[in-house]
Amino acid sequence: MDIQRINPREWNCSATVFGDLVFLSGTVADNKSLPMKGQTEEVLRKIDAVLAKAGTNKSRILSATVYMADAALKDEMNQAWMAWVDRSNLPTRTAVGAALTPGTLVEITVCAAKS
Amino acid sequence: MDIQRINPREWNCSATVFGDLVFLSGTVADNKSLPMKGQTEEVLRKIDAVLAKAGTNKSRILSATVYMADAALKDEMNQAWMAWVDRSNLPTRTAVGAALTPGTLVEITVCAAKS
Amino acid sequence: MDIQRINPREWNCSATVFGDLVFLSGTVADNKSLPMKGQTEEVLRKIDAVLAKAGTNKSRILSATVYMADAALKDEMNQAWMAWVDRSNLPTRTAVGAALTPGTLVEITVCAAKS
Repeated sequence: MDIQRINPREWNCSATVFGDLVFLSGTVADNKSLPMKGQTEEVLRKIDAVLAKAGTNKSRILSATVYMADAALKDEMNQAWMAWVDRSNLPTRTAVGAALTPGTLVEITVCAAKS
Repeated sequence: MDIQRINPREWNCSATVFGDLVFLSGTVADNKSLPMKGQTEEVLRKIDAVLAKAGTNKSRILSATVYMADAALKDEMNQAWMAWVDRSNLPTRTAVGAALTPGTLVEITVCAAKS
Repeated sequence: MDIQRINPREWNCSATVFGDLVFLSGTVADNKSLPMKGQTEEVLRKIDAVLAKAGTNKSRILSATVYMADAALKDEMNQAWMAWVDRSNLPTRTAVGAALTPGTLVEITVCAAKS
């Protein structure tokens, strides 16, 4: 069964599609001057765009992993998450603190089902 | 193909079931006064309960990710893991240190196959 | 559907194979005296070997997660990654800093499709 690869670039691609499953890379904001909430909003917009390219959407997310440069900012991240997530179709989520590239406050990866 | 969602709550659910696959959220202990071993034991009991709701059990775990607030306590976490894991059906596991919510010593997420 | 378990040992196995999917454990270098690039090279060789045992190879990786003891060494890790990865079949990847076992500089886990 073939693997579809979305947006291949230097060392990874934005998403792989295999059968009914879609795997995304860790996604970060381009605008590093934004605070946690703004970076999370940008990341979630990017995830929407990649999911659309993969033929699915946020209502079909199976699991999400959120890495935060400062776990104390979890509530701020969560404000953006709550405004974005499909509350009728809540995914699983794991959110932990991790060391990220300087300036990056949040990195999110998801696994989704095809629509 | 439909996605079943177990225990939806505010921002995530305990597990998603898609076809033969089950994805759990990062699971933490409620009793933050417990040491690493006790928190791990509570987490693993919660994982058993969620897997049961999803129609599977620990013998069908494909992968586990363990996040520890203090990676130096890995041996203590591992004592609870070894007492719990199905040694005839060992899953893959990744265990790393990460910043967790204050008081939380361990957070575990698993992906399992339906029975 | 049965789960195949590759290299079961004390508390986990090297890989689980379920249907068309292969899940690997977090993989680390045995030679802790190596710098980041050398440890990454050793990890990637081990991943090649486990993927082969599971009946697949690096061109079929769906997602990779890279945990680095020092996220500032990401470029060095990436040199080994770039020399190894199948550039015609780029997987998704998430790379973050995390606390690892003393001496371990990098731990990598992948999910792959069967060939």
